[in-house]
Amino acid sequence: MNPTDRSWIQTVSLVPPTLQDNTADADRLIGALKDRLQTDAIHLDLDLLKQLPECLRKWKYRVCCLLFQDRHRWLVTAIARADDPPPMAGLAVDLGTTRVVLRLIDLAAGSRLAESGFDNPQLAVAPDILARIHFAESPDGFTRLNELIITGLNRSIEKLCRQAGLEPRSIYAVSVAGNTAMTHLFMGLDPRWIIREPYIPVVNKPDIIKASQLGLDVNPSARALVFPNVGSYFGGDLIAGILYSGLHRRPDVAILVDVGTNAEVIVGNRDWLIACAGAAGPALEGGVTAMGMMAAPGAVDRIAIDPKTHVFEIHTIEDQPPQGICGSGVIDLAAQLFLSGMIDIRGKLVAAVCADHLKKIDGLAHLVVVPADQSATGSDLTISQADIDSLIRSKAAMYTILETITSSVGLQPEDLTTFYVAGTFGSFIDPRSAIAIGMLPDLPLDSYTPLGNSSLAGASLALTSAGCLEEIDRIRDRTTYLELNVNQDFMNRFSAAKFLPHTDTARFPSVEKRRRSS
Amino acid sequence: MNPTDRSWIQTVSLVPPTLQDNTADADRLIGALKDRLQTDAIHLDLDLLKQLPECLRKWKYRVCCLLFQDRHRWLVTAIARADDPPPMAGLAVDLGTTRVVLRLIDLAAGSRLAESGFDNPQLAVAPDILARIHFAESPDGFTRLNELIITGLNRSIEKLCRQAGLEPRSIYAVSVAGNTAMTHLFMGLDPRWIIREPYIPVVNKPDIIKASQLGLDVNPSARALVFPNVGSYFGGDLIAGILYSGLHRRPDVAILVDVGTNAEVIVGNRDWLIACAGAAGPALEGGVTAMGMMAAPGAVDRIAIDPKTHVFEIHTIEDQPPQGICGSGVIDLAAQLFLSGMIDIRGKLVAAVCADHLKKIDGLAHLVVVPADQSATGSDLTISQADIDSLIRSKAAMYTILETITSSVGLQPEDLTTFYVAGTFGSFIDPRSAIAIGMLPDLPLDSYTPLGNSSLAGASLALTSAGCLEEIDRIRDRTTYLELNVNQDFMNRFSAAKFLPHTDTARFPSVEKRRRSS
Repeated sequence: MNPTDRSWIQTVSLVPPTLQDNTADADRLIGALKDRLQTDAIHLDLDLLKQLPECLRKWKYRVCCLLFQDRHRWLVTAIARADDPPPMAGLAVDLGTTRVVLRLIDLAAGSRLAESGFDNPQLAVAPDILARIHFAESPDGFTRLNELIITGLNRSIEKLCRQAGLEPRSIYAVSVAGNTAMTHLFMGLDPRWIIREPYIPVVNKPDIIKASQLGLDVNPSARALVFPNVGSYFGGDLIAGILYSGLHRRPDVAILVDVGTNAEVIVGNRDWLIACAGAAGPALEGGVTAMGMMAAPGAVDRIAIDPKTHVFEIHTIEDQPPQGICGSGVIDLAAQLFLSGMIDIRGKLVAAVCADHLKKIDGLAHLVVVPADQSATGSDLTISQADIDSLIRSKAAMYTILETITSSVGLQPEDLTTFYVAGTFGSFIDPRSAIAIGMLPDLPLDSYTPLGNSSLAGASLALTSAGCLEEIDRIRDRTTYLELNVNQDFMNRFSAAKFLPHTDTARFPSVEKRRRSS
Repeated sequence: MNPTDRSWIQTVSLVPPTLQDNTADADRLIGALKDRLQTDAIHLDLDLLKQLPECLRKWKYRVCCLLFQDRHRWLVTAIARADDPPPMAGLAVDLGTTRVVLRLIDLAAGSRLAESGFDNPQLAVAPDILARIHFAESPDGFTRLNELIITGLNRSIEKLCRQAGLEPRSIYAVSVAGNTAMTHLFMGLDPRWIIREPYIPVVNKPDIIKASQLGLDVNPSARALVFPNVGSYFGGDLIAGILYSGLHRRPDVAILVDVGTNAEVIVGNRDWLIACAGAAGPALEGGVTAMGMMAAPGAVDRIAIDPKTHVFEIHTIEDQPPQGICGSGVIDLAAQLFLSGMIDIRGKLVAAVCADHLKKIDGLAHLVVVPADQSATGSDLTISQADIDSLIRSKAAMYTILETITSSVGLQPEDLTTFYVAGTFGSFIDPRSAIAIGMLPDLPLDSYTPLGNSSLAGASLALTSAGCLEEIDRIRDRTTYLELNVNQDFMNRFSAAKFLPHTDTARFPSVEKRRRSS
């Protein structure tokens, strides 16, 4: 979303030395870059100094420099001939707890070369962050977790490079965005204090690190930027998301929400940023229902219910026979059930309306979404009253978090005009459905801007926009983290949000309208 | 000569984290150091981050930090418990073409732990800089020269540490001063362009380098400061010498001279510095005479000649039987011959006065300094008219260089009030003798301040005075190098200086007085 301000690659022409101007080679190069970069805080690696005299003379003092930046200096990490320079690539990494996505970038053109992802190999030893940190405390556990992710990355780097017809040695810059625990495990930093009161990471703003020191098989001179975090619960992936959204540059107040098991929210503009994170519960991602599954072929991702006939119109990913339901499908389902009157404002299944969609299983009421004869599993795909209750608690938690953070700056969720939805899951949600159940505020639909994998996009931006470390730090430093206290205010708001769409229906005029028209 | 301003070791107490103050460990440490150092440009190595959480908690948030500094940041290179911290040492190196001297320093106390020297092992392949650079261009020659000096240093480091009861791992900071060619060979940088027009070094201001990257067997986190040079012919050893002398801080104009085969001269004060270097010839170091030798036991280092009887009173180093004559002895000898009338103002032996001290060898006039029956060699120790001529050319060159550099700022050598004499050889010269032959200007004797090994002393200062890199760079950046053009002016001055003490005897009133009183 931000323009590529400036490339990390700069070609400079040096004035060749004379008896009257006999500055050393390195100081001559730094002098030329100083004019370009408007600073003399420029560092050259010793390895580069070793090549410099021969290269300068061979290339007739025209040099293509690959730059990077730490917090206090520009770094020259490679030099090449100015005419027809060899390929120079950057690697952006979204270091997810569950899935890791890599993007290879042509640093000269600022364009994408290849992209691929893999399941985080740490899943094999521990499914979530909490379990991983506990595993890290077992003998060799910590080393194991670090090795798993580094080995996984190296394997993926090799594949990605092969795909793009490059050598891993052509990667000169790496940018990594992940949550605080994941970046700690990636850097080989002990995560144990992240989950223990008072929740202290080893580092908030890691300095630029040699990629080789991290164990990455890329060019030995390559540097890695690991996105900074605000604390244990607000990680670099979100900082990357803000960077990509451009929220921190806007004059008006906007919001960015990463919807998931954990809801992470940032409200702000170019002057201030407030962030908070809270558990919304796995129900939003379809994690609770027996029929819940990841977004994959065969997952129900869209549902429409005819308000008159109550016939279900089911869409699945890649139009495969339905196997289960994914997050966006669950939200669609809840919205359609509500709009068609099959559940009431408390989320309770209305037997009279549901009619033969209802079925008792082990004495509990279930709604059949896909009958056995139409499902890929050969069994009914159903959702229980308990599942719906859980979903409502999750959507209520989400809305309460939005209300709490906006009210902390004297606003209501409905006052916002720009609403960024981050994360892959977020991108698939139909905002109309999320509004219908009162999970997201009743804003005009064009207020909602899905960002896709904003963590990866932000990490990529750091590779195509030279000098953006300062911007990243400014985002981090300006972000005030709001501790969500589950106090009486919060509980009152939560209770009010446990209705569909909300106790205060005036907040959701479009939903009222749709219900009336159904 | 400068006071130890500030130690590289700083002990800080951190406020332990709470829920209200949950900054990360690293950022907390940097915060505490920021208050102390008045800057937030502070870098922590990844290796150190790895130890940090455990150490902070074990040490109850009281930490002894070993700092160093590159051009843009303070670096934390080690942490230790604040109570009874382990020894932390620094290594200062005078990287001479002929001899290398090492000093081990206790960084906490700022005191000397041990010192030792070794002949530069590169002597085995090439005696001087020019020969070494040519050798560097032979196959593997460059690598060989680099290995020779690094291996030599590592061997000496081990011995030095054993002597001081330390492990080499206890060395956390290294400071190296040498001429431009030597520091290039030490860093593994190609020196070939140093000796070729327009005489370009690879680097003038090398950044701080990890000692391990240089191949030094010290602590893996240790950093090395290599003193910057002004160009190919004005090296870091002289910058170190200026630093140690304090010349660059003085309100009055002072001079620093490193007397040797090459005379290196700096004139200046706290506002400006002018430097030049020129060949004075090996005669000053006793290198030409057949009886010349290094300052070692048995070397004649002091001579007095009775003006009436012309009896020679000889002093040798360690009072051993005389084997030869060293630099300071040669200058004493020339001064005494002149003052006693045995040579005339042109430096010619006066046969009538020399009488039976004279002897023809191969048809050439020689003066017997030590007869065969008193010498350790069993032969006469003699000096020839040609040797004396050579010495006079050298002393004339030295004075001409002094006159040229002072006149460039509108002064005469006699106008200076402070005269630093650098180098081991310089320390042994009797200024009265150097004045008598017109090699040094006729200043009050207390104007002359011998500095000893000022290169080593300056390198040591960088280890005991935190923050002095800025001062070193200021010296370097402010130094204007004056190219000595051997033009008509220079030749006129040189011709005038080829007399004893000088054509213009009014410049040397004390010498006239001594001659009259002889």
